[in-house]
Amino acid sequence: MKLSQIALKINCRFVSSRDVEITGIAGIENAGPGDLTFVANRKYIPYIKKTRASAIILGEDIPEVDSPSLRTEDPYLAFARALELFYVPLIPEKGIHPTAAVSDEAEIGPDPSIGAYAVIGKGCKIGAHVCLHPHVVLYPDVSIGADCILHSFVVVRERCRIGNSVILQNGAVIGADGFGFAPTKDGAFYKISQTGRVVIEDDVEIGANTTIDRAAVGETVIRRGTKLDNLVQIGHGSQVGENSVVAAQAGLAGSTQLGRGVWVGGQVGFAGHLKVGDRAVITAQSGTSHDIAPGTIVSGSPAFENASWLRSSAAFAKLPDLVRKVRRLESEVEKLKNSLKNPK
Amino acid sequence: MKLSQIALKINCRFVSSRDVEITGIAGIENAGPGDLTFVANRKYIPYIKKTRASAIILGEDIPEVDSPSLRTEDPYLAFARALELFYVPLIPEKGIHPTAAVSDEAEIGPDPSIGAYAVIGKGCKIGAHVCLHPHVVLYPDVSIGADCILHSFVVVRERCRIGNSVILQNGAVIGADGFGFAPTKDGAFYKISQTGRVVIEDDVEIGANTTIDRAAVGETVIRRGTKLDNLVQIGHGSQVGENSVVAAQAGLAGSTQLGRGVWVGGQVGFAGHLKVGDRAVITAQSGTSHDIAPGTIVSGSPAFENASWLRSSAAFAKLPDLVRKVRRLESEVEKLKNSLKNPK
Amino acid sequence: MKLSQIALKINCRFVSSRDVEITGIAGIENAGPGDLTFVANRKYIPYIKKTRASAIILGEDIPEVDSPSLRTEDPYLAFARALELFYVPLIPEKGIHPTAAVSDEAEIGPDPSIGAYAVIGKGCKIGAHVCLHPHVVLYPDVSIGADCILHSFVVVRERCRIGNSVILQNGAVIGADGFGFAPTKDGAFYKISQTGRVVIEDDVEIGANTTIDRAAVGETVIRRGTKLDNLVQIGHGSQVGENSVVAAQAGLAGSTQLGRGVWVGGQVGFAGHLKVGDRAVITAQSGTSHDIAPGTIVSGSPAFENASWLRSSAAFAKLPDLVRKVRRLESEVEKLKNSLKNPK
Repeated sequence: MKLSQIALKINCRFVSSRDVEITGIAGIENAGPGDLTFVANRKYIPYIKKTRASAIILGEDIPEVDSPSLRTEDPYLAFARALELFYVPLIPEKGIHPTAAVSDEAEIGPDPSIGAYAVIGKGCKIGAHVCLHPHVVLYPDVSIGADCILHSFVVVRERCRIGNSVILQNGAVIGADGFGFAPTKDGAFYKISQTGRVVIEDDVEIGANTTIDRAAVGETVIRRGTKLDNLVQIGHGSQVGENSVVAAQAGLAGSTQLGRGVWVGGQVGFAGHLKVGDRAVITAQSGTSHDIAPGTIVSGSPAFENASWLRSSAAFAKLPDLVRKVRRLESEVEKLKNSLKNPK
Repeated sequence: MKLSQIALKINCRFVSSRDVEITGIAGIENAGPGDLTFVANRKYIPYIKKTRASAIILGEDIPEVDSPSLRTEDPYLAFARALELFYVPLIPEKGIHPTAAVSDEAEIGPDPSIGAYAVIGKGCKIGAHVCLHPHVVLYPDVSIGADCILHSFVVVRERCRIGNSVILQNGAVIGADGFGFAPTKDGAFYKISQTGRVVIEDDVEIGANTTIDRAAVGETVIRRGTKLDNLVQIGHGSQVGENSVVAAQAGLAGSTQLGRGVWVGGQVGFAGHLKVGDRAVITAQSGTSHDIAPGTIVSGSPAFENASWLRSSAAFAKLPDLVRKVRRLESEVEKLKNSLKNPK
Repeated sequence: MKLSQIALKINCRFVSSRDVEITGIAGIENAGPGDLTFVANRKYIPYIKKTRASAIILGEDIPEVDSPSLRTEDPYLAFARALELFYVPLIPEKGIHPTAAVSDEAEIGPDPSIGAYAVIGKGCKIGAHVCLHPHVVLYPDVSIGADCILHSFVVVRERCRIGNSVILQNGAVIGADGFGFAPTKDGAFYKISQTGRVVIEDDVEIGANTTIDRAAVGETVIRRGTKLDNLVQIGHGSQVGENSVVAAQAGLAGSTQLGRGVWVGGQVGFAGHLKVGDRAVITAQSGTSHDIAPGTIVSGSPAFENASWLRSSAAFAKLPDLVRKVRRLESEVEKLKNSLKNPK
């Protein structure tokens, strides 16, 4: 496909004295002749000169380059669209595989794609154009909206509700029992029935092997448009607001409430029973047992304001120096005190 | 059900001038008319006035309230029992599903409930009233006690032993190979056969997608009454003592020994080959490569005594201040020294 | 088996005035009469006197002992080989189980062992002597080399490539979609097609429930001989060099490049778009958003040189002391200033 054609299809400004033939898309370090690449992260600007790509998608703010380029205000989005021009996605087989165990008391919408050994319990309701890859298990009374994709080894437990256009990556566990136990006098634990469910709204994507626990009472909720990465833990009764992102291996203990547009870094931990305001950012590996105000960026464990944490972290690396300085000051002050007591 | 009746059934003191009809149980923030709610965490006391619940379960220590209430020394346990009065649990179908692949050389106890596509290897022994949900896999020579519940996508590897009344949530992996490799001279690794097994005692619950590795030799053991949350990692040869709790995403490297009644917070890490004493508490995101004394509360990475860690953490947040103070002191001491050398 | 025979088989020096009959292998704390044990970690030297084992494998550097012993430069490797003399490994049934759903358009090499309910998509190519345990799913166009073992609930997604002699533990997810979303102006996210794949080279082992994401473009690569523990997250487009080890619950964000022979501790986090040099060591729970130089040992979050971090950590534990010292210095300097202003 000609670069000029791609420009039209992905809505970019074509900047080149000559048109070039593009045969694929590649990352800037691996791209070769025929490839279109992109720079969305400023860290990769130095690679622009070195890349062997035939053309580059660039932000409007990046200085002029020699190579043929496509300019746009949002190079990452343009790259996403360019990818789709060259990519043949996996198309699962239509219909219900003969080995799928579908309850007679389940309702399946039109145009399903249900793979081998899928299990659909009684009382389940599945919307139109839903794809269940092989080995997906739906416990009884689950509802799945239209246009969802559930990958192999996804399980959705009894009575949970999945919205429309939701993608569940392999091994995601939706609605396992929350971790609720009442300690008894003899030191043992009494299991608290987890009577609630999980509700996942439209346009959510859940990563591989992520676990979202059902609520003890009420609902654990993942709101519209939110994306969770792999191996994330969402405790019972928690809520994640609209259009939030939670990176891999982060964990929310029970009854955590994240607002809208919250960004959670990898391996972050929330202690539960707390609120995080809209558009807050919690950087990787941070942890908090307190509320986070809207719009703030916090870091560290325990977490506090990011700019301040950066200064504290820099000082931490020089802490042995500080200890030495204080020791020297103590000895000098001691000498000064002696000099004053015994002036020469 | 009348509130007075519930009081009798869950063994609480009925405190109200009027009886009320209860139709459900709910969390204090979401409860509406007809609901019974509870306060077990003091953080929720302010909600008592605001809740729309018809009645509240309260600890004996909480001040008098206007709403109809049930009093008890253990409101969380009472809540757990109240839940059971209104909750219809999932009842799996009895019998062995025709698609289950059960070895002729396996022994299945009375009254089983074995779901679609379950696999039971040869030499397995399954106790009475066991429920294997669809897609549970037991490798050969596994033994499962009575009254266990294994959820979909649980796997128990060869020769592992599960006690009575054990619950394994979805995706838990019991007995995968431990991470044991001997480095060789050429920089590669020689796999150490993981010849041992995992033993899980009675009344244990294991969370979703948690992994418990088999021992290289001997046993990895989870003792009676212990509860592990989701995505926990238990390394080969480790032991977790009776009635301990391990929160989500915590990890024990190999040969870690936790005592009885130990509480491990979320995302905690143990470096392996160490001992944690009975009733020790390790707060969330802490990490240790040293033994922890019985009954102590530790925090931080590396972890030390919690009260002390709280003070250090508070000081950390003000570290840039401290650096400035020391710099100012240095300049003042310098001035003092000069003044003494050159008195006016 | 006689100890002297074992010495020959595992290539150790036999040091004993009498030969003994060995019936099993055990850890030093649990060993009993008839057992051969070993000491590879110096932490266990004190147990040599206490063990009830009949014989011990010891490094050449360890002082003389009373018990019959086998001496070698590499006691851990010798232990690994001794284990194999007494261990009967799991031998899966040969052939293709009648319930396996194997596409007519898949190629299966000689001598397969394919378990119940395995699913092999069209276009897959499977090498010789491969074992797929029950409930393994291969999406279309996957290639698997010779002598691989894939445990139950492993999934390999479309077009991914697995080399020879690879072991995938239960629940490992190879090739799920990477976490790639372009933010849009209305605050939502546009999914970036993850058009690449995962390549796993020869002799790699991947732990239980570990997730390795497919690249947006190009490949996520795990190079020859590398071992990943359980619950590890490898982001899209990352590379792990040859003969590296990554301990449990560590995470690499996208486009992280680890060199050869890198050792990553448990729960470590890499922020992505960074390089870690050959033979670097990143200790448990550390985190970095910067490159790590070859051969360095780093610790902490943010991580820096280990020896320095150890000093900073020691100082951190005494930080409240330091604050008090500075406060006292301030007051003493104030007094000194006053004394100088108002000399007696």
